[in-house]
Amino acid sequence: MSTSVSNGRLKQELNRISKDLHESVLTFWLRYSPDQDYGGYFNNLDRDGAVWDTRKHVWLQARQVWMMSAVYNTTKDSRYLEAATPGVEFLRRHARTTDNRVYFCLTREGKPVYMQRKIFSECFYVMALAEYARASASDEIRSEARKVFESVLKFRDDPTLVGRPVYEGVPPASSLAIPMILLNLVDILHEPGESTYSHIEEWCVEQIKLHVKPELKLVLEHVAPDGSLMETPEGRIVNPGHAIEAGWFLLDYARRIDNAELKKLGINIIDWSFDSGWDDEFEGLYYFLDREGYSPPALEWNMKLWWPHCEAMIGFLMAYQTSGDARHFERFVQVLNYCHENFADPEHGEWFGYLDRHGKLTHRFKGGAYKGCFHVPRALWRCEGMLRELLSQ
Amino acid sequence: MSTSVSNGRLKQELNRISKDLHESVLTFWLRYSPDQDYGGYFNNLDRDGAVWDTRKHVWLQARQVWMMSAVYNTTKDSRYLEAATPGVEFLRRHARTTDNRVYFCLTREGKPVYMQRKIFSECFYVMALAEYARASASDEIRSEARKVFESVLKFRDDPTLVGRPVYEGVPPASSLAIPMILLNLVDILHEPGESTYSHIEEWCVEQIKLHVKPELKLVLEHVAPDGSLMETPEGRIVNPGHAIEAGWFLLDYARRIDNAELKKLGINIIDWSFDSGWDDEFEGLYYFLDREGYSPPALEWNMKLWWPHCEAMIGFLMAYQTSGDARHFERFVQVLNYCHENFADPEHGEWFGYLDRHGKLTHRFKGGAYKGCFHVPRALWRCEGMLRELLSQ
Repeated sequence: MSTSVSNGRLKQELNRISKDLHESVLTFWLRYSPDQDYGGYFNNLDRDGAVWDTRKHVWLQARQVWMMSAVYNTTKDSRYLEAATPGVEFLRRHARTTDNRVYFCLTREGKPVYMQRKIFSECFYVMALAEYARASASDEIRSEARKVFESVLKFRDDPTLVGRPVYEGVPPASSLAIPMILLNLVDILHEPGESTYSHIEEWCVEQIKLHVKPELKLVLEHVAPDGSLMETPEGRIVNPGHAIEAGWFLLDYARRIDNAELKKLGINIIDWSFDSGWDDEFEGLYYFLDREGYSPPALEWNMKLWWPHCEAMIGFLMAYQTSGDARHFERFVQVLNYCHENFADPEHGEWFGYLDRHGKLTHRFKGGAYKGCFHVPRALWRCEGMLRELLSQ
Repeated sequence: MSTSVSNGRLKQELNRISKDLHESVLTFWLRYSPDQDYGGYFNNLDRDGAVWDTRKHVWLQARQVWMMSAVYNTTKDSRYLEAATPGVEFLRRHARTTDNRVYFCLTREGKPVYMQRKIFSECFYVMALAEYARASASDEIRSEARKVFESVLKFRDDPTLVGRPVYEGVPPASSLAIPMILLNLVDILHEPGESTYSHIEEWCVEQIKLHVKPELKLVLEHVAPDGSLMETPEGRIVNPGHAIEAGWFLLDYARRIDNAELKKLGINIIDWSFDSGWDDEFEGLYYFLDREGYSPPALEWNMKLWWPHCEAMIGFLMAYQTSGDARHFERFVQVLNYCHENFADPEHGEWFGYLDRHGKLTHRFKGGAYKGCFHVPRALWRCEGMLRELLSQ
């Protein structure tokens, strides 16, 4: 592959990324999140690692298990397997019901607090168990992950199974969140050479394609089931960070099956979503936009959140790895610089998560119901891996 | 009553208020919101009155019926009764189920889109019918309002009736929203001299009192059932606008029953909530705060929304009417000035609703799922009435 960025440049960025991942981010979670008394993790951590809410949000419990297991599977550093085990035990003991629903929030001790009428807690539960099963070589846990995944597919097909009524006035729609997370899940579930999930991968790719509008250079969150535009506020929503994440999930898959057309599509999704989502005046990616320029109903639409930037880092480095186009590498560096200048906290480790449009910090906590040991370490870990691959070529 | 503000000053503010109410705000809704084809109102209106979403949000449909009926009941101007009638007909035809649940959102034609697992849609439905029954002298509609109100009380006592499971890990709590809306509802439902709802009024007052913490000079959104502090993020939430609204609901009730102790409490709630909620650096009332200074989890916590300021206008003018303390009148003028400088839109009428912490507009629409023909006209109409009373004394 032709690359137009010098090894010196690659090494420089690799050093920045590795230092942040190993000395600031993973250490923060290893040090502050384990709950020695009840298992699982404190995921609601203040700037300095202090617990500001003892409840345990299952998305973050599960994502931390996945992250710790994934780092262990790469490094074989036993600290990460040891950090994953109490998380998976807590999840298996408390998070799942007998009909394979998974709670959204539990008390510190593991009592149920809240269950969403959505399938995402179940998805992250599968993600956690699948990666941990690989780390611990446990057939039992792998089999549980696959069993819960079968339920997830049933819930996808019939939302009344998760308690969500189907109302007459709601037009049928395809939501980008579903195929993208399923594509990511089967990537984690499948073993090399296995074709069990090929039909799901194909379904996910077809569904994601419905959301991509080359004529608008936009990726839409919600479209009609045939991919046509919906003239509703939902049909006009653009979520640049989400679209970029879908782009790199697709690109990752395309690289695995070596499909040139899909690689091109993944890169286009990343490029277009960044172009539409970047705030030229104050920098950073917007959270939501309306494709017709109306005000997005979400009050936080113009805030700059950490995670879209994490997805953009992965997306552009993967795009560069695929295209060899230095423009993609520069975009990666642009986003990394924005993150290190605005989100990183050298004093206490990890990154902050929430800025106003102007880049001013609005929330001081490092972990909450939606932010935990996931987006930042995943981005740094994936980028570290890609930079090493680039350097080894 | 001793008043320390001159009649000239009162007249000056009355003129500002009346001009805004009659020439800018009510005209906006009368002109742009009626749906001539399907009845009800377009409540999702852009800056210039254009419809940006044809769906009909029931909170706003019902609140507009209430507002139009209330203005009619004050002015006997038939335009307002004519504007209320298609709204109440739309609600009665489409919004209520056979078991007295009320949808949160309908299509333009009236098909169901969404139902919350809360009781607020039902409350606003009752509010609409009760005030419209008075305007139209309809016993049938008044009786329906009272019947649905009985269901609301049942739903309050058993959240599983609105489909909300009770989870083991959720500590019992008292939420300020419930007693305050019920107190407002019975104020609208009851007829002069009627005592049907006295026991509910007493329950509401006792519940509201649990949330008031004189030693902290704070009003809390959520407390334990015995009023003790809850050491959770919910237990730390302060919502200054909501508390001020509770304060004037209580003060209004206290004035009606002429209870000096409750009057004092209502005024304290308004004063303390304003003092804790006002942003001394950039002006305006914060949306949420945490009593211990942690970052409130809501992403929009530091935004300045129109409605807390509307409540503060009513609250301080009512406090002045009660206390005769010029400081309360100055606070009323301070908030009115902030609103006219930041929210009002002299070009197209009505007010904008959403500003960032610095007072910069973030959303251009005049009506959405939570903003409609309600807070602004209610505040101006109540203030107009109070200023007229003050001038007539």
